[in-house]
Amino acid sequence: MILRIDRLGVELPPPSDPDPAGAQAVQELLGGKFGEMSTWLNYTFQSFNFRARQGARPFYDLVSSIATEEFGHVELVAATINTMLTGASPIDDGRAPEAALADVKGIGNPHHFLAGGQSSLPQNSQGRPWNGDYVFSSGDLIEDLTHNYFLETGARNNKLKVYEMVEHPAARALTGYLLVRGGVHQVAYARAIEHLTGASLMKMFPSPRIPTEKIPESRPHIERGEHTKLYRFSEEDFHEVAAVWNGTHPETGDELVVANVPHPEGVPAHDLPPQPAVFAPGYSLEEITEIAQKLRKQAGLPDKPTGVVSEESQGLVESLVGRVPS
Amino acid sequence: MILRIDRLGVELPPPSDPDPAGAQAVQELLGGKFGEMSTWLNYTFQSFNFRARQGARPFYDLVSSIATEEFGHVELVAATINTMLTGASPIDDGRAPEAALADVKGIGNPHHFLAGGQSSLPQNSQGRPWNGDYVFSSGDLIEDLTHNYFLETGARNNKLKVYEMVEHPAARALTGYLLVRGGVHQVAYARAIEHLTGASLMKMFPSPRIPTEKIPESRPHIERGEHTKLYRFSEEDFHEVAAVWNGTHPETGDELVVANVPHPEGVPAHDLPPQPAVFAPGYSLEEITEIAQKLRKQAGLPDKPTGVVSEESQGLVESLVGRVPS
Amino acid sequence: MILRIDRLGVELPPPSDPDPAGAQAVQELLGGKFGEMSTWLNYTFQSFNFRARQGARPFYDLVSSIATEEFGHVELVAATINTMLTGASPIDDGRAPEAALADVKGIGNPHHFLAGGQSSLPQNSQGRPWNGDYVFSSGDLIEDLTHNYFLETGARNNKLKVYEMVEHPAARALTGYLLVRGGVHQVAYARAIEHLTGASLMKMFPSPRIPTEKIPESRPHIERGEHTKLYRFSEEDFHEVAAVWNGTHPETGDELVVANVPHPEGVPAHDLPPQPAVFAPGYSLEEITEIAQKLRKQAGLPDKPTGVVSEESQGLVESLVGRVPS
Amino acid sequence: MILRIDRLGVELPPPSDPDPAGAQAVQELLGGKFGEMSTWLNYTFQSFNFRARQGARPFYDLVSSIATEEFGHVELVAATINTMLTGASPIDDGRAPEAALADVKGIGNPHHFLAGGQSSLPQNSQGRPWNGDYVFSSGDLIEDLTHNYFLETGARNNKLKVYEMVEHPAARALTGYLLVRGGVHQVAYARAIEHLTGASLMKMFPSPRIPTEKIPESRPHIERGEHTKLYRFSEEDFHEVAAVWNGTHPETGDELVVANVPHPEGVPAHDLPPQPAVFAPGYSLEEITEIAQKLRKQAGLPDKPTGVVSEESQGLVESLVGRVPS
Amino acid sequence: MILRIDRLGVELPPPSDPDPAGAQAVQELLGGKFGEMSTWLNYTFQSFNFRARQGARPFYDLVSSIATEEFGHVELVAATINTMLTGASPIDDGRAPEAALADVKGIGNPHHFLAGGQSSLPQNSQGRPWNGDYVFSSGDLIEDLTHNYFLETGARNNKLKVYEMVEHPAARALTGYLLVRGGVHQVAYARAIEHLTGASLMKMFPSPRIPTEKIPESRPHIERGEHTKLYRFSEEDFHEVAAVWNGTHPETGDELVVANVPHPEGVPAHDLPPQPAVFAPGYSLEEITEIAQKLRKQAGLPDKPTGVVSEESQGLVESLVGRVPS
Amino acid sequence: MILRIDRLGVELPPPSDPDPAGAQAVQELLGGKFGEMSTWLNYTFQSFNFRARQGARPFYDLVSSIATEEFGHVELVAATINTMLTGASPIDDGRAPEAALADVKGIGNPHHFLAGGQSSLPQNSQGRPWNGDYVFSSGDLIEDLTHNYFLETGARNNKLKVYEMVEHPAARALTGYLLVRGGVHQVAYARAIEHLTGASLMKMFPSPRIPTEKIPESRPHIERGEHTKLYRFSEEDFHEVAAVWNGTHPETGDELVVANVPHPEGVPAHDLPPQPAVFAPGYSLEEITEIAQKLRKQAGLPDKPTGVVSEESQGLVESLVGRVPS
Repeated sequence: MILRIDRLGVELPPPSDPDPAGAQAVQELLGGKFGEMSTWLNYTFQSFNFRARQGARPFYDLVSSIATEEFGHVELVAATINTMLTGASPIDDGRAPEAALADVKGIGNPHHFLAGGQSSLPQNSQGRPWNGDYVFSSGDLIEDLTHNYFLETGARNNKLKVYEMVEHPAARALTGYLLVRGGVHQVAYARAIEHLTGASLMKMFPSPRIPTEKIPESRPHIERGEHTKLYRFSEEDFHEVAAVWNGTHPETGDELVVANVPHPEGVPAHDLPPQPAVFAPGYSLEEITEIAQKLRKQAGLPDKPTGVVSEESQGLVESLVGRVPS
Repeated sequence: MILRIDRLGVELPPPSDPDPAGAQAVQELLGGKFGEMSTWLNYTFQSFNFRARQGARPFYDLVSSIATEEFGHVELVAATINTMLTGASPIDDGRAPEAALADVKGIGNPHHFLAGGQSSLPQNSQGRPWNGDYVFSSGDLIEDLTHNYFLETGARNNKLKVYEMVEHPAARALTGYLLVRGGVHQVAYARAIEHLTGASLMKMFPSPRIPTEKIPESRPHIERGEHTKLYRFSEEDFHEVAAVWNGTHPETGDELVVANVPHPEGVPAHDLPPQPAVFAPGYSLEEITEIAQKLRKQAGLPDKPTGVVSEESQGLVESLVGRVPS
Repeated sequence: MILRIDRLGVELPPPSDPDPAGAQAVQELLGGKFGEMSTWLNYTFQSFNFRARQGARPFYDLVSSIATEEFGHVELVAATINTMLTGASPIDDGRAPEAALADVKGIGNPHHFLAGGQSSLPQNSQGRPWNGDYVFSSGDLIEDLTHNYFLETGARNNKLKVYEMVEHPAARALTGYLLVRGGVHQVAYARAIEHLTGASLMKMFPSPRIPTEKIPESRPHIERGEHTKLYRFSEEDFHEVAAVWNGTHPETGDELVVANVPHPEGVPAHDLPPQPAVFAPGYSLEEITEIAQKLRKQAGLPDKPTGVVSEESQGLVESLVGRVPS
Repeated sequence: MILRIDRLGVELPPPSDPDPAGAQAVQELLGGKFGEMSTWLNYTFQSFNFRARQGARPFYDLVSSIATEEFGHVELVAATINTMLTGASPIDDGRAPEAALADVKGIGNPHHFLAGGQSSLPQNSQGRPWNGDYVFSSGDLIEDLTHNYFLETGARNNKLKVYEMVEHPAARALTGYLLVRGGVHQVAYARAIEHLTGASLMKMFPSPRIPTEKIPESRPHIERGEHTKLYRFSEEDFHEVAAVWNGTHPETGDELVVANVPHPEGVPAHDLPPQPAVFAPGYSLEEITEIAQKLRKQAGLPDKPTGVVSEESQGLVESLVGRVPS
Repeated sequence: MILRIDRLGVELPPPSDPDPAGAQAVQELLGGKFGEMSTWLNYTFQSFNFRARQGARPFYDLVSSIATEEFGHVELVAATINTMLTGASPIDDGRAPEAALADVKGIGNPHHFLAGGQSSLPQNSQGRPWNGDYVFSSGDLIEDLTHNYFLETGARNNKLKVYEMVEHPAARALTGYLLVRGGVHQVAYARAIEHLTGASLMKMFPSPRIPTEKIPESRPHIERGEHTKLYRFSEEDFHEVAAVWNGTHPETGDELVVANVPHPEGVPAHDLPPQPAVFAPGYSLEEITEIAQKLRKQAGLPDKPTGVVSEESQGLVESLVGRVPS
Repeated sequence: MILRIDRLGVELPPPSDPDPAGAQAVQELLGGKFGEMSTWLNYTFQSFNFRARQGARPFYDLVSSIATEEFGHVELVAATINTMLTGASPIDDGRAPEAALADVKGIGNPHHFLAGGQSSLPQNSQGRPWNGDYVFSSGDLIEDLTHNYFLETGARNNKLKVYEMVEHPAARALTGYLLVRGGVHQVAYARAIEHLTGASLMKMFPSPRIPTEKIPESRPHIERGEHTKLYRFSEEDFHEVAAVWNGTHPETGDELVVANVPHPEGVPAHDLPPQPAVFAPGYSLEEITEIAQKLRKQAGLPDKPTGVVSEESQGLVESLVGRVPS
């Protein structure tokens, strides 16, 4: 079972100039062969299918806790894409005008508009859906770890390239963060293989051969030590990650440590505004607010919404009117 | 972000007679168009992509908390399949004999053995991978809820049919439970549409037209009131589900209530034994235990594994030697 | 069995400025998950697979006659795409010049040119092929109808969005018409569920929440009452649709009626000119006309072609020379 | 546009012993690369996309009328599969017992039961969905005809092999008929190429090199001359098929003729009984009959169902109780 | 078994102005349904699966030797795409700057950059992967040859269209050559059918109806007689191609001859420069050269690289700096 | 370019008892994600796309020569499947009887019979086609090598499992050989990474943790030293493999050597007999032999077939009559 914490792992900038072509590229990090859905679901299935987990406990705990962090990465990529698509059709509270999507004809992934609500899809940068063939779960511990090390290497490659291709501030904030956290996972799997076989995989870093600290948007996270910390992402379980996650970081030489809190604190997400041209959410803000309020009242809940969103969410609609897709 | 609790939502029987052909059928509930991966990832993407969530808070909270429960359902289906496949090749601690998989040639899904470690796959009952085209996330609240109601109806259909096709005790325990909990979600989405449009969808229950209480394995869960409870699956968030989840159950007339705990307590999973013929986990129990112990010691962890597994796990190997696939 | 009437259900404008990027978007209405191939083949398979059809006759008749209308909608979408692609490479009677397709490099769906003859494909707006997983045919009457209502809702969503994205006159004529006729089917399935379960689905209209009459190109069809008429699309069969299709229209309040003719009269299609750059039809107009004439003569047929095409077809080649893709 | 005639092109035997493994094989003729969906949709798309159709009228008429016949062939394959699956779970009027599908676990295509209502699917013999990549519509007349000749050759190959593999009387009746009618289409496309290029394709018959008249179930159709007749499948259009369909049959030497009626007379289909284990149609025969009767009455329709089904339909339920899948 | 000769079948121009949109189109000739992977793997599988090959030796030899040539065509298409992508991100020896891929955002196939190293992919012009359903290998000699003739016709269609769409000199050199050599294969399969059945397929040429000699880039190859020569692509085997490949060329009337050498002499490929933005090859030229030299030395190999590349390769980096994608 | 040598890399036993269910499993080694098509096409594409190949010559030569060997492995797997399917329908020289495929209904991959001529397919053990997404060619040398090491590990896993599942003598001869030769490739990629990074990957062997010498069918090849030899598979190129392939074998400690011949000598394949039920090759042996002889004569070739097949091929038909699929 899992519990959800309605916060993002890292802060993303609010919507600014929309970038549908960039959003198409960022989809590779969501639904691509090496995207976050792949890391997430590979490790999740490996944890489900883990035989003799009590005997191999440190490795079971490692795979399980990394799997759990990956959910948060999928969430972040989706939030980034949604941010980049916000404003790509006119932002207002009325009904969409007659040619509200004409400006995005032939730009980016058409499903961002025709299928979705200017929002993320389980697809790659070519618009092809993620599929279960991307999951490797052989049950052979060494093989699964070898795969995972390779998968993280491919994932790091893709993050670096998306970084180079997309300059939108949300995409840069995303990739800067994911390079650091994905780097932790890449090191973790290499370390696990070292523990089991003695093969010195730390010598393969960095792969691709670009030090993460060269990426300006990664540096603040490195300075906070995020490249050395493994979170368990569980209140009570997975303590034996400490048996694998130790030694020094192959790039920086810093000590690898298990975080003394289960998860990063996180920040509330931006509450992205309606996009009437794509019927998201179908109601105007006024209409749906009124309906919700009535239901809350009937249920004895507070009058105001109880959920938490970012403070910038308040003025978003106003700040976005008149922006157009680049 | 999510946190993981290393327990299953409901108790499954330990492995007994293996049933690879049954496991092939149960895959429909995992990677089929209406399987648990679909319910899980549909609602998860809808929650990521939800615009104006503060305004529509009760509906955002509903979709998010149901999404979170679905993870546990995927976990349960995987555990069921793994249980059914355990023992389908010889169980022992030595290396696999020369024709250890000969008995399962032509039976069930060949990938259960050739690709996986006698374990679950993100595939349907035909061995085709789950894919992102199964996700519908339009951003239009009414449409997404209409879809979700339909998806749960198809899911209920599939659970009932798998129940009828597979008599293995793990499959029956699984479907008996999922029918009750999936039923909660089917009602929840119907109720949400009622609140928004006034259309009396409660009149469509049960769909398919088999009352859940007719299923013997569902009855204990109904007796515990599990058909009326919505869990938030979050320590702090999603309180506004109460604004939607209310009224009476369309089949039993019982009051619908939000659980006063965030999640069911759960039970530790069985620690399934190695299957040397498929190299899962590649090491014998003795070898891997010894390695793990050494690593734990180096890391200053307790000598014994700290994770929790079911008590039956202890004698599993002994109880399974000599069983053969039906 | 079916019979074909070589006429389109509604008049489309003749080719004007080509719009390959628009044609790519319109493909969503042809080969997308919610496109006309999906509605067509879903209802067709449901009609083939209908058990106890004599007992459930009104519902069998409903599904069958709607299925039959959908063929005409696929035909219309194809004609629209073909119209929009006409002229995207030079129109003339000679052989194609050396770089006749250079202007469409990187624009729209490359298969419109490389695979097809500047013509429609069984693909969606991303160039992915329609596939049989889009068909739902469970045999459970309520489930199939629930699915069909949802499918029509998704289809209406897509038509509205394509309307907003593509301003080409053929696309607008198409979507204006399909919104009205697809609306009939959406109402019909909702009504069928009401008859069976008593659930008041009429309250869910319009979904998406845009009244069809707001679309200027839909209005003339509404004024002709096309939103209230169900055609049987059969000379002798499917009379029992009248047992389902009755009551009032949920948006306009008008009486729902079964048309007193089996099908709309229809109009001859435009005879689209050759596109020599893509070898369609491979022969020049003169060559193929001469061959055809000779064969007609040998077979004792009239000297002139006997088929019917639109009157505008005559001067099409002349009117299109020199137009270029936008 | 099309009109539907609610009759099958040829008579099929009523359900007898169920044969799910055979039904799986017959799916190749429905959703396989060379199945009837492929012939149907290839010619249909080619007819939609036909440029300069007035100039090339005889060829447009040929492709269009063959396309139209293919609908009826898809319908026949579906009816055959449905016939073969009838009785594979217990036939009765009550609710399905607890293990009603246990006997078909691991047999045939699991989707016949888990996804469908013991009914046909748009899939091939491996359970993979038909997809739009199977359609070739280049717009180049010679190429399209070359493709069609090849497609019919592959289709004939598949029909012969399914004939050899499946002995169920419905499958034999189907393949015996399709071999004759598909043979007409194979000859027609060869003849069209001959007319255009002078290449003597008649010399390639039969291909595969098995004369159709060797198949006992084909012989009655040959004796009725069905191998020489082309139907226009239209009341008013497609008269110029006569300009292509002429000369002698390459196997029998008989004269090729255009039928003087638009379509074969056809026969009413069997009304296949409910299969409660798969919820098809969800209601018992009594329930749904009562509902339908009430609706008919309200609509002023006759008291008895007005549709036509085969006379054998009456006693089907009784005759099938107790049969089990082979 | 095969042996590799590290030379290209024909000379391609060195990289000049990059053309990613053109490279996307050329992919159709690589991974499309009618691309070179399809011709290659169709004939290769047919040769593997050939029954009674000693009896049907001339046909086995024909299919096998054409299959072998097709490898070289795949190699050429890949080299063309790589040439066209070279320089699409900055060429230099340092690390990639921060937005090195920003100029190709939204242009061409995103996988050329995100997945590959500015290099060819087993995908078509839409970015969809080549798949095994494109292989037809029925074992029926006539059917396989009929298929192959059709496949070559579709392939010729695609080559002509890519020629018209892409003006990049590498693409033109490629298509000019492939039209001639593919033409040989199209004739060969037609001729094989003629030998077996007597059907005069030579009358179908050219198909599409554009004489190859109209293509300026094809003319030099025709003048060298390349349109009349069949190579065996084997030192010792496949001599019986001469029993099929004889008579006159259907377009030019020249005598068809089996080449008296096993294969064209070929030319060394250009050694394409590193593209640091996509980490290909990850090392700078200096670094990798130094590593290689050290390894050569340790192995007792010559100090300089022993492989052969084109002479233009030397100055490539210098000539390309500063070019930008069109 | 490549040249073909019409011999198999190793001897396979002639057909004996057919084993269609085993042939289905062996397909995983052909068209599976880790099958020989994958190793072949991965390395082939990597060699095509290799930038700076002169600088990185030893690695280019390594990847290219291994790629070339893989063709021979695909050929061997295909030959094995064809051997196992031979006799699964009646072997004789007449036409197939009426139910010649009835015995294989529901057994193995239906496409072996319905699509192919009892012969291999580019599909995996589930009947799903190989596809281009299985190719990884990033251009980053370290990443590509990491991938290749992982791919070979997965491939070795699959070979071991197919060995355990399928006892047919051809399958055992195949897997015994492939384990040894695939092992060479696994070591080669590990060694290449060691040379580049210094990471001691030799410590990871064997992976899976079963020493190859435990497999009886592998032992003869190990005794001949085949586990230590790298062949260049080229007459003149790829000499620098010696700069990578050196040191000692991680399992046996033997010296790694580059073979002093370009390729193994090989043996002629068995000439598999016709299977009339599936129309392979469509003609009887007598008919096709007569046609071939006539064509040879006309072309001035020897009277007898010039190709080489195994000596056992002569009496194959006689030895196989009466065998039936297990």
